[in-house]
Amino acid sequence: MFNKLNEKCGVFGVFGHLEAARLAYLGLYALQHRGQESAGIVTSDGRRMYSYLGMGLVADIFNRDNLDKLPGYLAIGHNRYSTTGLSYLKNVQPLLIKYAKGQLAIAHNGNLINTDMLREQLEKEGSIFQSTSDTEVILHLIAKANGIPLEDAIIKSLRQIKGAYSLLLSTPDTMIAVRDPYGVRPLCLGKLGEAYVIASETCALDLINAKYIRDIEPGELLIINEKGLKSIKFATQNKSAMCIFEFIYFSRPDSYIFGRNVHMIRREYGKQLALETKIKADLVIPVPDSANSAAVGYAEQSGIPFETGLIRNHYIGRTFIEPDQQIRDFGAKIKYNPVREVLKNKKVIVIDDSIVRGTTSKKLVKMLYEAGARQVHLCISSPPIIGPCFYGIDTPTKKELIASSHTVKQIKEYLGVESLHYLSREGLLKATKIASAKFCCACFNDEYPIK
Amino acid sequence: MFNKLNEKCGVFGVFGHLEAARLAYLGLYALQHRGQESAGIVTSDGRRMYSYLGMGLVADIFNRDNLDKLPGYLAIGHNRYSTTGLSYLKNVQPLLIKYAKGQLAIAHNGNLINTDMLREQLEKEGSIFQSTSDTEVILHLIAKANGIPLEDAIIKSLRQIKGAYSLLLSTPDTMIAVRDPYGVRPLCLGKLGEAYVIASETCALDLINAKYIRDIEPGELLIINEKGLKSIKFATQNKSAMCIFEFIYFSRPDSYIFGRNVHMIRREYGKQLALETKIKADLVIPVPDSANSAAVGYAEQSGIPFETGLIRNHYIGRTFIEPDQQIRDFGAKIKYNPVREVLKNKKVIVIDDSIVRGTTSKKLVKMLYEAGARQVHLCISSPPIIGPCFYGIDTPTKKELIASSHTVKQIKEYLGVESLHYLSREGLLKATKIASAKFCCACFNDEYPIK
Amino acid sequence: MFNKLNEKCGVFGVFGHLEAARLAYLGLYALQHRGQESAGIVTSDGRRMYSYLGMGLVADIFNRDNLDKLPGYLAIGHNRYSTTGLSYLKNVQPLLIKYAKGQLAIAHNGNLINTDMLREQLEKEGSIFQSTSDTEVILHLIAKANGIPLEDAIIKSLRQIKGAYSLLLSTPDTMIAVRDPYGVRPLCLGKLGEAYVIASETCALDLINAKYIRDIEPGELLIINEKGLKSIKFATQNKSAMCIFEFIYFSRPDSYIFGRNVHMIRREYGKQLALETKIKADLVIPVPDSANSAAVGYAEQSGIPFETGLIRNHYIGRTFIEPDQQIRDFGAKIKYNPVREVLKNKKVIVIDDSIVRGTTSKKLVKMLYEAGARQVHLCISSPPIIGPCFYGIDTPTKKELIASSHTVKQIKEYLGVESLHYLSREGLLKATKIASAKFCCACFNDEYPIK
Amino acid sequence: MFNKLNEKCGVFGVFGHLEAARLAYLGLYALQHRGQESAGIVTSDGRRMYSYLGMGLVADIFNRDNLDKLPGYLAIGHNRYSTTGLSYLKNVQPLLIKYAKGQLAIAHNGNLINTDMLREQLEKEGSIFQSTSDTEVILHLIAKANGIPLEDAIIKSLRQIKGAYSLLLSTPDTMIAVRDPYGVRPLCLGKLGEAYVIASETCALDLINAKYIRDIEPGELLIINEKGLKSIKFATQNKSAMCIFEFIYFSRPDSYIFGRNVHMIRREYGKQLALETKIKADLVIPVPDSANSAAVGYAEQSGIPFETGLIRNHYIGRTFIEPDQQIRDFGAKIKYNPVREVLKNKKVIVIDDSIVRGTTSKKLVKMLYEAGARQVHLCISSPPIIGPCFYGIDTPTKKELIASSHTVKQIKEYLGVESLHYLSREGLLKATKIASAKFCCACFNDEYPIK
Repeated sequence: MFNKLNEKCGVFGVFGHLEAARLAYLGLYALQHRGQESAGIVTSDGRRMYSYLGMGLVADIFNRDNLDKLPGYLAIGHNRYSTTGLSYLKNVQPLLIKYAKGQLAIAHNGNLINTDMLREQLEKEGSIFQSTSDTEVILHLIAKANGIPLEDAIIKSLRQIKGAYSLLLSTPDTMIAVRDPYGVRPLCLGKLGEAYVIASETCALDLINAKYIRDIEPGELLIINEKGLKSIKFATQNKSAMCIFEFIYFSRPDSYIFGRNVHMIRREYGKQLALETKIKADLVIPVPDSANSAAVGYAEQSGIPFETGLIRNHYIGRTFIEPDQQIRDFGAKIKYNPVREVLKNKKVIVIDDSIVRGTTSKKLVKMLYEAGARQVHLCISSPPIIGPCFYGIDTPTKKELIASSHTVKQIKEYLGVESLHYLSREGLLKATKIASAKFCCACFNDEYPIK
Repeated sequence: MFNKLNEKCGVFGVFGHLEAARLAYLGLYALQHRGQESAGIVTSDGRRMYSYLGMGLVADIFNRDNLDKLPGYLAIGHNRYSTTGLSYLKNVQPLLIKYAKGQLAIAHNGNLINTDMLREQLEKEGSIFQSTSDTEVILHLIAKANGIPLEDAIIKSLRQIKGAYSLLLSTPDTMIAVRDPYGVRPLCLGKLGEAYVIASETCALDLINAKYIRDIEPGELLIINEKGLKSIKFATQNKSAMCIFEFIYFSRPDSYIFGRNVHMIRREYGKQLALETKIKADLVIPVPDSANSAAVGYAEQSGIPFETGLIRNHYIGRTFIEPDQQIRDFGAKIKYNPVREVLKNKKVIVIDDSIVRGTTSKKLVKMLYEAGARQVHLCISSPPIIGPCFYGIDTPTKKELIASSHTVKQIKEYLGVESLHYLSREGLLKATKIASAKFCCACFNDEYPIK
Repeated sequence: MFNKLNEKCGVFGVFGHLEAARLAYLGLYALQHRGQESAGIVTSDGRRMYSYLGMGLVADIFNRDNLDKLPGYLAIGHNRYSTTGLSYLKNVQPLLIKYAKGQLAIAHNGNLINTDMLREQLEKEGSIFQSTSDTEVILHLIAKANGIPLEDAIIKSLRQIKGAYSLLLSTPDTMIAVRDPYGVRPLCLGKLGEAYVIASETCALDLINAKYIRDIEPGELLIINEKGLKSIKFATQNKSAMCIFEFIYFSRPDSYIFGRNVHMIRREYGKQLALETKIKADLVIPVPDSANSAAVGYAEQSGIPFETGLIRNHYIGRTFIEPDQQIRDFGAKIKYNPVREVLKNKKVIVIDDSIVRGTTSKKLVKMLYEAGARQVHLCISSPPIIGPCFYGIDTPTKKELIASSHTVKQIKEYLGVESLHYLSREGLLKATKIASAKFCCACFNDEYPIK
Repeated sequence: MFNKLNEKCGVFGVFGHLEAARLAYLGLYALQHRGQESAGIVTSDGRRMYSYLGMGLVADIFNRDNLDKLPGYLAIGHNRYSTTGLSYLKNVQPLLIKYAKGQLAIAHNGNLINTDMLREQLEKEGSIFQSTSDTEVILHLIAKANGIPLEDAIIKSLRQIKGAYSLLLSTPDTMIAVRDPYGVRPLCLGKLGEAYVIASETCALDLINAKYIRDIEPGELLIINEKGLKSIKFATQNKSAMCIFEFIYFSRPDSYIFGRNVHMIRREYGKQLALETKIKADLVIPVPDSANSAAVGYAEQSGIPFETGLIRNHYIGRTFIEPDQQIRDFGAKIKYNPVREVLKNKKVIVIDDSIVRGTTSKKLVKMLYEAGARQVHLCISSPPIIGPCFYGIDTPTKKELIASSHTVKQIKEYLGVESLHYLSREGLLKATKIASAKFCCACFNDEYPIK
């Protein structure tokens, strides 16, 4: 249960469609799981650019009126995930600015690791910052790269930044998609009639009936305008470092990420986990919805029946008021309720995608025992998280990660489960069926591919 | 896929707790699946009553500020489902009025069938109506029954109304729960410390850690005040007529309704359906989330693997803007996306809870074929709906019900499926394991228990 | 400075114009000074009635969208003044209900004095009340008067109520204007092309270019529908009791009330006040804007120059946050600032319309002295208020009225003025130039015309 | 009637008070007449800075909640006037940015004339702009002036900009007030206990009981922090160029601007106008409220009685919906209504402060004639406006100024008045009683002091 701190951004763009803003609205809606804090759309009619940003869910921010005020055939959009403390309107993307060459907008999924240094340097040279987001640094670098064509200015800027970035940029007449040389975050290209579409995940293409063409490649800059597509390889990289957590937790099961269907990968994780653990139990239940796929795989492989042991409440809304002191110990109850009839006197294998701090898992286990489970075996469809992520997965510090300072046995005792099993690192990579060297697994092995 | 027209109301009440309003908030949140159009809470501090109502989701309507303005130890709350055209604030419940005996509030789950007549009669005698809801009629009847104690006035009024009603009433110092003589809609009693709790479903008791005591019985009036509980049987009824659709679709799987766990019942429906159909297929997939339980049962009984073939988007928000003409044929796509990798070249059994008009099912089937399914077999975990519901399940008219005018074979052809199977009526009742005479199955057999 | 507790309601109606809702919007805007708490408009297209109500100013409540949802050729509207504690949406008018004869709406300016009794009686007979307003009683009485034509039902109801009422009623096809037998509050008839217009004050006719026809007479019921006008005298009254405070404070100076221009009347009050007081001073200044007219008259008569000694801030907005303890003694400063250069070392005559509690006047006087005035003479353009108003001028209780328990000399000392003068009762009536018997002056002489 | 396009900004700052945000709120409220489009407050607790901005009136934007989130002892605030088309949140001031030296906020009253050039230069060097406001240029210049103390950086920046500027800057621990070398816009210093206060006009000092100390001098930079006050003369200027329109229209009558009370100056304009015009008439009436003071002076000098001939409606609200085509010719009616009884058959002298395009004046004159005036003489308390303003008085282009292309006689005919009189330039300056060379009168004489 990789928690909400780790939810990722979603980006979506369309070039060459008369209803660009509405397609962006739909695309962002399909990518809502990547960020629920805020969303924005910037459009262009070829001459002027328009922007509308807001806090909350896509379907709550946009309405007919504000979509009608976003004319044009080009649109880029962004869903932002919740970060600590800095959730104000100035940080909502896409950022739209005016600089020497005119208007420029940017939407960014990822996290840069050398912005402090770059920001300091830029400020020394007189740049001023409106937001606290890394993304603004990219705009300043582009603006500084003066006297050269935009294309070159962008490439020059990209060569200065380090970290994870899947970007969408827009000028009044051109949309540009960029994926960092390591390909940490996904980004794909699709086509809808004559229009080109860019999205973080293929599920956004599906919703608008766009056809998937290909992934934007690591180190690729794709320029889309009236002349068509122009691809530039701005970096050559021996070693990609795709985030393994896109498979484990971030992406939607119906999406194809890094060329593979997420559900099928998770299903394999579940099967592999079953191979690695020889538990005798009555039932396999997922923590819904993120562990559903792995639980199906586990059940299939183990022959132990798949069941629904927890019901998830999806109506959490914008701001749920936690009850006061007299009404206590809510923990995971706001989100999950056990199906007692299923659990009563049963030996239960619970599948979850990951454990971060362990506090929520502990409450969930307690809930299952109180609901009558005789034994709770917790099986995690990924290895222990021992290192924080620096490329955008806003994980807690190392200290807060329970697996960085505790053995599996200690965690088992803390959680109070009958047994605790993690998918092995080898099992994870084997099940993924992509060369292991292509992934960043820093959170599992402390080896950070980007220095 | 019994659609949103059929979503039901939820009622929740608490007597004797210092945080009555917050408990009602939590209870309504747990019952959110029974109505998403509007919600309200009325509280009392023993002398004066307070009210807050709003449009939308419970978690969006209420906040610390307005909950703080609902003091008292008694609270009743209501979630309203979406009806056609009359969704304005005056219809939001609980209704709170002032009449000869002081303040009186009411929250109603169900539908009355003789209100036109009663309303006409009341208007003839000079009553004026503020809302278009049936529920206001009950208040008028109580107000008219003057010169007798409230208890008697309520009973006198209940004897005049016909239809389905699970009610919560509140005066400044008393909470009253009522279930109609047929017991059409569920209503249960729980206890939280010294406080009494009433809820449409037990899942609301679970969230606040209240203990389930018993169901309010058909024809029972339960008075709760400082003196404790007082139960009055205001009607004797030989034949109960519990709504079978509470099992099939309305209630949450973790709830116990009419004494039975909903998930287990649905699982039985799935098993029974598997027994009745002998389909050779590669996969069983549910239309999530309402058919999840039945699909688990079907898979178990048939031995055909359970899979996740459709992903549901839960972020629909308050008002989703449908795309304009150029972006067409959305149909079920806003809600569901297929997992192509799962479906590709597969013979798929799709489990759904019901078919109303057939239009959404048709789009869903098309979506599955387009995603690559070789065969789509549609199995419905309930019998064909041939009659509209008059007791609150705002079904379309008979004409609009596809099964009222088409044979299964015709529907199969309309939907374009390889095969179409409904759970038999006998199978349904057998799987339910409650004497069939106790249910209203009018939607399946056109026999309306309440004249 | 008769304060905001005394602000009055405004009513406005139009029959026979295709833009009825927009005209009502304009009319209510022109009558905004009579009530700023809330406003509403009910329209009819001849068959169905539509309603939109809100809290705040007319120009903030209504917009293109909600005005567009108020179709029809008939509209009635209402501005509500601020009362103590009961400012919630259910009390916003016009009230719109459904009863035996169909839909009925009402907008009421005034106050009834026998509603407690009537309400009790109605409740005994089973009526239920949604609001705490007097006005709802009228609807119940009409609804009770069954079996007779609406016209007769209204008359029968009016004969039961006592107090002040200028009413607008609307059915789907008819607008009805009513003025109580004493004519306490104003109400006039105008014409705009073929359309009929009803308004509390003529300034609302001016804004929409409607022509003033005549006042609705005391005891008159005017029925306006497709057949034209029909006037019924439902009460004969020897003695009218028009509220003298409409002249002194409530109405807009540009309006004609009871056949006379308000500004000219107030100017006469100022002149009469100058005749009655023989003060030697350098300047005459009004408390703006309510005493502007009287100050002009006083200056003219006395020959002492008129000056602007206080500037009024009109931007108070919906909710002004009073500063906390550290920033003290704001008093009248939020509203008024002295022009020191004008006041410095001057003997100043300050004209105000009335004194209620005296607290604000005291602060104002202090402000003027601090601004450098050598002498402050306070001249009030009405007599001392010794009795509360029961007909809608939500005055404080008798005890709170400073003049009910203090002599003029005591008040002078309390306020700290050089001299204090009230317009004499004889002077008031003489200056009004209407037979004194036609007015209710209960607040000045404790003689209440309506028992 | 210098219209709303010309309304000016207001700035307010306080240093050294525990309720800095609330004082800023009050100060902005007192300065509301200088800008009603938007407002903002930035505070500092010595380490961190906080910001809250919004569209609309001060009293509508701020509430207890958001004021409570603006802690600290230092606050600067800004009211913005309405400009054409660019009224979005990014332009709302104070602007708050982060640059090499930390956080910096700015609030600006005035208009720069060389920003296009500066902006182009800055953009060439890589600066990016978030807003379309001139003010952002100042921040960029300061940020570019790196490696030198803030004080010097500001001075260096100020020497590059040309135009009108009364500025408030804030770092986390210092407030800085600046007035341009010509002193175009007013800015004054006050003291409240130990706290220092800066405001556009003295009326803001009055409201919070602060004592006026002195004006910020043209070309002065005043640094306020824990060490006290430090004044730097960053420019020496032989010739000041104070905006004469601050006297004529912009400022509040109770304020002291450039050392003189505005009401008394306007009164003198009226007297001088009376001396220059020898009209025989029955009445003198102002266009309220901006011409009130001049009308009082005119009446006194001429001996013709002062009267109230127009009533102003102050309830215009945030967005007034203009009526549609069928309800025409509203013109000035939304704002003014004539007092017919005053005007009937009278020869009327109307005093207004200025004529811009002439369209509103024409409607007003028509309104007065229709109300019964026999003669309308229009007397303007300032000379004909023949040149647009480049220093912040967003006047229309020269072409649109009626007096730039028409003789007084032609304007008289266009307006349809009996006679039209402007105050002479000599009269204006004589009445102002300040050496004429000290003013910018470019709008009257086309001589622009700042090149």
